Amino acid sequence: MRLAIKEARKGLGRTSPNPSVGAVIVKDNEVVARGYHKKAGTPHAEINALAAAGELAKGATMYVTLEPCNHFGRTPPCSQALVKAGIDRVVVGMLDPNPLVAGSGIAHLKEHGISTMTGILEEDCHDLNRPFIKYITRSIPWVILKAGVSLDGKLSFVRGSGGAVTGPESHRAVHRLRNRVDAILIGRSTQEIDNPSLTTRLPGRKGRDPVRVVLDSNLIISESAKILHLTSEAPTILFTQKNVDAKKVARLVAQGVQVEMVPVDSGGGLSLKSVLRNLGERGITSVLVEGGSRVHGSFLRYHLIDEVQLFYAPVFAGDNGVSLLSGLSVDGGRKDAITLERIKVRRYGDDVMISGLISTDRH
Amino acid sequence: MRLAIKEARKGLGRTSPNPSVGAVIVKDNEVVARGYHKKAGTPHAEINALAAAGELAKGATMYVTLEPCNHFGRTPPCSQALVKAGIDRVVVGMLDPNPLVAGSGIAHLKEHGISTMTGILEEDCHDLNRPFIKYITRSIPWVILKAGVSLDGKLSFVRGSGGAVTGPESHRAVHRLRNRVDAILIGRSTQEIDNPSLTTRLPGRKGRDPVRVVLDSNLIISESAKILHLTSEAPTILFTQKNVDAKKVARLVAQGVQVEMVPVDSGGGLSLKSVLRNLGERGITSVLVEGGSRVHGSFLRYHLIDEVQLFYAPVFAGDNGVSLLSGLSVDGGRKDAITLERIKVRRYGDDVMISGLISTDRH
Repeated sequence: MRLAIKEARKGLGRTSPNPSVGAVIVKDNEVVARGYHKKAGTPHAEINALAAAGELAKGATMYVTLEPCNHFGRTPPCSQALVKAGIDRVVVGMLDPNPLVAGSGIAHLKEHGISTMTGILEEDCHDLNRPFIKYITRSIPWVILKAGVSLDGKLSFVRGSGGAVTGPESHRAVHRLRNRVDAILIGRSTQEIDNPSLTTRLPGRKGRDPVRVVLDSNLIISESAKILHLTSEAPTILFTQKNVDAKKVARLVAQGVQVEMVPVDSGGGLSLKSVLRNLGERGITSVLVEGGSRVHGSFLRYHLIDEVQLFYAPVFAGDNGVSLLSGLSVDGGRKDAITLERIKVRRYGDDVMISGLISTDRH
Repeated sequence: MRLAIKEARKGLGRTSPNPSVGAVIVKDNEVVARGYHKKAGTPHAEINALAAAGELAKGATMYVTLEPCNHFGRTPPCSQALVKAGIDRVVVGMLDPNPLVAGSGIAHLKEHGISTMTGILEEDCHDLNRPFIKYITRSIPWVILKAGVSLDGKLSFVRGSGGAVTGPESHRAVHRLRNRVDAILIGRSTQEIDNPSLTTRLPGRKGRDPVRVVLDSNLIISESAKILHLTSEAPTILFTQKNVDAKKVARLVAQGVQVEMVPVDSGGGLSLKSVLRNLGERGITSVLVEGGSRVHGSFLRYHLIDEVQLFYAPVFAGDNGVSLLSGLSVDGGRKDAITLERIKVRRYGDDVMISGLISTDRH
């Protein structure tokens, strides 16, 4: 199963809106074939592994990270293919997270005399597809808050001026992260201050640009903003509210920008839930929230963040720096605070990344 | 030399105002004796190792982390003892940091026909005694800024209320750190909010209380403060300015508190340089600065911090939290910011400690 998980990882960030799945075929204690799902619309991991195994699949065991599908989608059901290939035994990491179909693939295999086993390294298999699982069960994307901060928790040295506090190793890690998510989201202030292009730039290989999302409740974005004039396979989506300048909307749309109107929440900001629902409807399973301060605070306040990745640069920014978050207050001390769990720490040059998942104990 | 460094570490935090030194005696490729300096006024590492070696010292090689002394202090010079014991060769980590005596120990050995070698693992030997070396060369203590903060760089969840953001594993690490420094320093606000005792509490063994230092420019500390009524081998020192309530000073002194008057700096706060000079005159070689926000900012602003240890708890404190530092501003962006180097990262439960030395490139 560890090998199957390794296979699945090869497809990470490439399979949306499908999950990343890996499969390994073992016969007489030897690995005879491997496969992973490369991209939506192409064969599933199981089919790739069966193709690689050929005749050797007969009487063999398949280890697969996710329950084989049992329905016709863009590709025929894997459960039938496994039966047809003569697989003897199927070991499954986790059941299909879609409650409507969970267990049906395994049921089909059993009906055809294939022995099955489920829940092997289940948590690791689950970790492979947290975004997908959230998306399937709740129809909204997995949300990652990513920020580079100083030791005293500041996004920049001086309010209103851009420029990262973190170093080049962290920046490369961020581009690898962008390459794995479906969308990047920023607030209008960050757009104005940094005027970023939010594309994926990887040294030596082609990255995949995520969908770019800008929250701009009053539609005051400059029409010359870089993000509105990119050559990229991915669109830019502007979220705003009704009653904004219709002519400006028309000009932006004519320029190829997608403009979406969403309701305003009680605090006067755009309803972030509506934004996420809209992105979910577009098949976006993961979003990277990249600032600024108010956007971070709002997403946390409404409990809409799933994962946090903070890159700490070993510098002090002081009083004039912009805080990592604003608009979030904790009244009851530690017991009421938003907490991370499954903490991981990594070094990127002299920067230190602390990451984790938002604890869901209380929410 | 690695073994000698290991020996030296056993004395860390116990030898002030002397350095921590370790020595190992090797004969015929075998370690025949080890020794370290345990406490000021007791024999030096070399003498302890010679005593352990006895007759085996004849013709042997000694590895010692610091140049053997050549002067009569509270104990006779080690250089003479090495000659007398018949040591054949001395390998030295680093020269004596005191420029007035550096090299004289080695010169004495050479004059008596002992072959010597210097600068072996010099940086590691230097690291053993950074506080001592700063103290010897500049007559002021080594200053460590220590704080527990949230991911967004806050010392607490709500201004004016105490309570740590970090967890129990971090707290134990802080008590081990207190056990290794000569003094702990806090500002009057922190004293008021936390009313701490600043003693060393270690499970299962007796800690050594550091000297407690409170900065209180207007002498408004409550006379019932815990820190003024402790049973501890170490004194509490209150730094204030002239012209404060003389009767209150007299009452505090009668109570056993040491009160020191220092000048006020241009910003209206107590001159931190004068405070450190005063502590240096008392033989204090290391100080742990434990808050709060303004004290941290002031020490950093005047470039008086040498080392930083920050314990990050995986929580967000939000807008009402108290910043790690205040009163520090960085005008020129990253190039002007105070930076750490030699970064280390450690986990303490779910907390992450990032530590480092203040870069001295620019100061």
